[in-house]
Amino acid sequence: MTVKAYGARAADKPLESLDITRRAPGDHDVQIDIAYCGVCHSDLHTVRAEWAGTMYPCVPGHEIVGRVSAIGAHVRDFQVGDLVGVGCMVDSCQHCADCDAGLENYCDGMVGTYNGPTQDAPGHTLGGYAQQIVVHERFVLNVSHPEEQLAAVAPLLCAGITTYSPLRNWQAGPGKKVGIVGIGGLGHMGVKLARAMGARVIAFTTSESKREDAEALGAHEVVVSRDAQAMAARAATLDLIVNTVAAPHDLDAFLSLLKRDGTMVLVGAPATPHPSPQVFNLIMKRRSLAGSMIGGIPETQEMLDFCAQHGIVADIEMIRADEINAAYERMLKGDVKYRFVIDNATLAA
Amino acid sequence: MTVKAYGARAADKPLESLDITRRAPGDHDVQIDIAYCGVCHSDLHTVRAEWAGTMYPCVPGHEIVGRVSAIGAHVRDFQVGDLVGVGCMVDSCQHCADCDAGLENYCDGMVGTYNGPTQDAPGHTLGGYAQQIVVHERFVLNVSHPEEQLAAVAPLLCAGITTYSPLRNWQAGPGKKVGIVGIGGLGHMGVKLARAMGARVIAFTTSESKREDAEALGAHEVVVSRDAQAMAARAATLDLIVNTVAAPHDLDAFLSLLKRDGTMVLVGAPATPHPSPQVFNLIMKRRSLAGSMIGGIPETQEMLDFCAQHGIVADIEMIRADEINAAYERMLKGDVKYRFVIDNATLAA
Ligand SMILES: [Zn+2]
Ligand SMILES: [Zn+2]
Ligand SMILES: [Zn+2]
Ligand SMILES: [Zn+2]
Repeated sequence: MTVKAYGARAADKPLESLDITRRAPGDHDVQIDIAYCGVCHSDLHTVRAEWAGTMYPCVPGHEIVGRVSAIGAHVRDFQVGDLVGVGCMVDSCQHCADCDAGLENYCDGMVGTYNGPTQDAPGHTLGGYAQQIVVHERFVLNVSHPEEQLAAVAPLLCAGITTYSPLRNWQAGPGKKVGIVGIGGLGHMGVKLARAMGARVIAFTTSESKREDAEALGAHEVVVSRDAQAMAARAATLDLIVNTVAAPHDLDAFLSLLKRDGTMVLVGAPATPHPSPQVFNLIMKRRSLAGSMIGGIPETQEMLDFCAQHGIVADIEMIRADEINAAYERMLKGDVKYRFVIDNATLAA
Repeated sequence: MTVKAYGARAADKPLESLDITRRAPGDHDVQIDIAYCGVCHSDLHTVRAEWAGTMYPCVPGHEIVGRVSAIGAHVRDFQVGDLVGVGCMVDSCQHCADCDAGLENYCDGMVGTYNGPTQDAPGHTLGGYAQQIVVHERFVLNVSHPEEQLAAVAPLLCAGITTYSPLRNWQAGPGKKVGIVGIGGLGHMGVKLARAMGARVIAFTTSESKREDAEALGAHEVVVSRDAQAMAARAATLDLIVNTVAAPHDLDAFLSLLKRDGTMVLVGAPATPHPSPQVFNLIMKRRSLAGSMIGGIPETQEMLDFCAQHGIVADIEMIRADEINAAYERMLKGDVKYRFVIDNATLAA
C-alpha cells in the first residue's frame, strides 16, 4: 500500500513529502493509522547522516501513536480501533537471552523503527513521519491514556522509556535522591517520572531561565550547574543521576554529587567523547558510571501504564508535517518545550 | 616507646633506618610486634610524593602482620600473642553511615595507616616498615592462617582486600565469568580469589610471558590483551572485570567484553587520565564503569577467613628492610612475583 510520508532523499536535502509503501499485514502484524509522531534528536542525526550508515530515502520518527486499522490472522492482543504506540524498534531476533528477558533493546538483532534492515521496500525501515505503519505485534504497545491526550503520549515512546528504564533499573523511588541532568525532551520526562516514582528530584540545568519550568515539571530542587557553590553543597548526596545531555561535558562535576554506591547513567552519546572522568571520583565512593539505551517492550508497556495511572504525558508543541525542517532548526537551539509532535493528519495535505 | 623503622626524610631521599616513637596503648588499643610488611605501589607513590601531600619523615607500609604484644584495658577481642593484621587504615570517624555499614574505607574521616592525621608524634601516621605499631582495636584483624604462612598473608591486607571487595560486591561466583586485568600484586590475588569464589576466571595481560604463571595462579583462560582476535572472541561474554592496571590504557577494549549489565571495576587510579571511554560502549549493553577502594573492616576479616579456609596466600619475595630502595626499582619494572614482603626482624640490624 502506498502512503504519504515526510522524509529526506539525501543527507543534504531538506525533508519533503514522499510516497512510500507499507507491506500488507502478515499473520502477526498490526497495521496502524498514525495519528501523531514525536520528533526526537535521533531523527535529526539520522536524516542528516551525522551518524554513520543512513540509508535514503530516510523517513524518521519513532514516537508513534495511532489507531489499529488492520490485524494479522494470528494477532490476539490487539483489535481494529485500539489506541496503540510504537517506539524505537519494530523487530529483534526474538529468541536470544536479551529478548527472552524482555530487553529486546539490547538484542544484537534489534531492528530500529527507521534505518533498520528489513525485507520490505526499500530495504530499510521507514519511521513514523507517515500516514501508516505495519509492525509485528510484539513491538506494538497498548495506550490507555484518554484519547484527547494522544499527541502528548507520543514522546513517551522514546523520551519516556529512555528515562523510565534507568530510573526503574537503578531503583528510583521513595527515600532516594535522584538528579536529572538536562531539562529538554528526555530530561523533562525524567523529572516527571522520577517525581511520580516518589523520589526527591534535583534538576540540573545550565540556564537559570529554566528554574521555574523545572519546578513546574516537578523538581523539588533546581541547580544551575555553573553555580559552583550550589553544586558543592550537594556533594555526595545523590543516589542516582540520569544524565540526558549528549553534548560533551564535565562528568566529574556530577559524579562527585553521588553518594557511596551511587550511579550516574548516561542516556545520550556525544559525537565527540566527554572529557575523561577522573577515576579517583569513581574509586573514592565506589561510584558507577553507566549507560542505558531506550528500554525493553515489557517495561515500555509498564511505563505507558504507569504514565496513564499518574496522568503523565509529555509537554509538547504540535506542528504540521511541512514545518519539520523549521522545527529541526529550533530543536538545535533548544527552542522547544519540550518536544515537537507532528500531527500526521497534515501529511494528507 | 622508640622503635626502629625504615622511611624517607624527604621526597628525593632514599629510605633509610629511622627511630620513631609509638604511643603507649590506650584503653582500646592493640600493640603489635610487626613480623612482616608487604610492599605496595602506594608506598612508593607516597614516599616519593608522587601524590600530593606527603609528610616527612614518611614511613610507609600498610600490609602488616604480627603478634599482639600488649592490649588496652578495654580490649576484649585480642590477647597478647595473637596473630593479627593491619591494613590500609588505622582509624575513621566511627559513627557515620559508612562506618555504621562497616565500610570505614569510604568514611570521610578515614585515617590511612601512613601519612594520615593523628595526635601522635610527628602529627601524621607512620606505617608498617617498623618494629611495632599501636592501632585501635576496631582496625585490627584476626589472622587464622598457620604461622608459617604469615609473611605471605601480609599482602592480603591491601592487595587481597582491594580485589576481594569488588569481587564480592559485584557477586563473583559460580556461573559468572570474571576478568582480571593486570597480573601483578593486585591482579594475582584477584585471580586466586575469583577462582576460589567459583567464578570462571579470564586473566588479561599485556605479555605472553605471563600466560603460564596466570594459569598456575588459577586462571581458566589467559588472554594477551594485544591479541585483537582473542579479545574479539570474548566480546560481550564477561559478567565482571576487575581492572588492576593503574597506567592509562584503553578502557573500551575491556568494556566491550562485558555482557549486558556487566561492570568493570577500576581499583587503580592513573596519574594521568585514561583515554575517555566511549559512551556508546556503556549505553549499548547497559554496562557500568565503577571504582572500588580497598574494603571495610568486616569484609577484610571475612576475606582473611575466606583465604585461611581456602589456603590462599600471596606469592611473595621476601626482602630485608635495607633492600627496600632496590625493591622499589624492581617493582617499577614489574620485576616481582608478585609482592615484596619485608622481614621486619631485619630492622633490628
Ligand atoms: Zn528517540
Ligand atoms: Zn534477541
Ligand atoms: Zn596498598
Ligand atoms: Zn565514618
